Amino acid sequence: MIGRLNHVAIAVPDLEKASATYRDVLGATISAPQAEPDHGVTVVFIELPNTKIELLEPLGENSPIQAFLDRSPSGGIHHVCYEVDDILAARDRLKEQGARVLGSGEPKIGAHGKPVLFLHPKDFNGTLVELEQA
Amino acid sequence: MIGRLNHVAIAVPDLEKASATYRDVLGATISAPQAEPDHGVTVVFIELPNTKIELLEPLGENSPIQAFLDRSPSGGIHHVCYEVDDILAARDRLKEQGARVLGSGEPKIGAHGKPVLFLHPKDFNGTLVELEQA
Repeated sequence: MIGRLNHVAIAVPDLEKASATYRDVLGATISAPQAEPDHGVTVVFIELPNTKIELLEPLGENSPIQAFLDRSPSGGIHHVCYEVDDILAARDRLKEQGARVLGSGEPKIGAHGKPVLFLHPKDFNGTLVELEQA
Repeated sequence: MIGRLNHVAIAVPDLEKASATYRDVLGATISAPQAEPDHGVTVVFIELPNTKIELLEPLGENSPIQAFLDRSPSGGIHHVCYEVDDILAARDRLKEQGARVLGSGEPKIGAHGKPVLFLHPKDFNGTLVELEQA
């Protein structure tokens, strides 16, 4: 069912500093920061030859990554995102297998403009998993 | 400098159970478990079209992932591994930029038979970074 690894998301407290680390220390190609007010984050994309890393900084009140940064103030890997061909079929299979889909269970439009779902970390070895329709 | 994302490593307390989750719930292609006594882990590879996920279970005394699982008993994302063309050149650049290389600073032969280094998570937003010579 799962296809490509779409991205690894890393929550950071200071996006400018984190971007500079990836650019200057690791020599990576980074995008300009992109505010995503609907998702409560500002994102910098690190383009790798086969996938991307997304550096996420909280934006506005009630950012979905604020609680994570409260627990881990220096940041850390927040989630992994796998692509699926059909997000509704994926959701139904997951539910049949007893996995918990976060929120209402209905896909939302994610930061890339495609339908996404998040799965409960307790059902996936402490890993928050995002599924994005390819 | 950094190239492909070689893998994302997820530490798990029960490799058989975690493998079944990836196989049955997420529908992924998984390898047979592979003991790596020199690295203190047993690994299952999850092959995705563009990269791989490595599920790691502690093996033997002094496993390098035991302390992580003591802190996070249900598991979690342990590290990301980026490929570099020349690991010694990468190390020298990192040191010049003030990043800390773990251990002696000399590359060791990693689980894939290639030279690897680990970088201090405090220098990379709480993310343990492995570099592997491509």
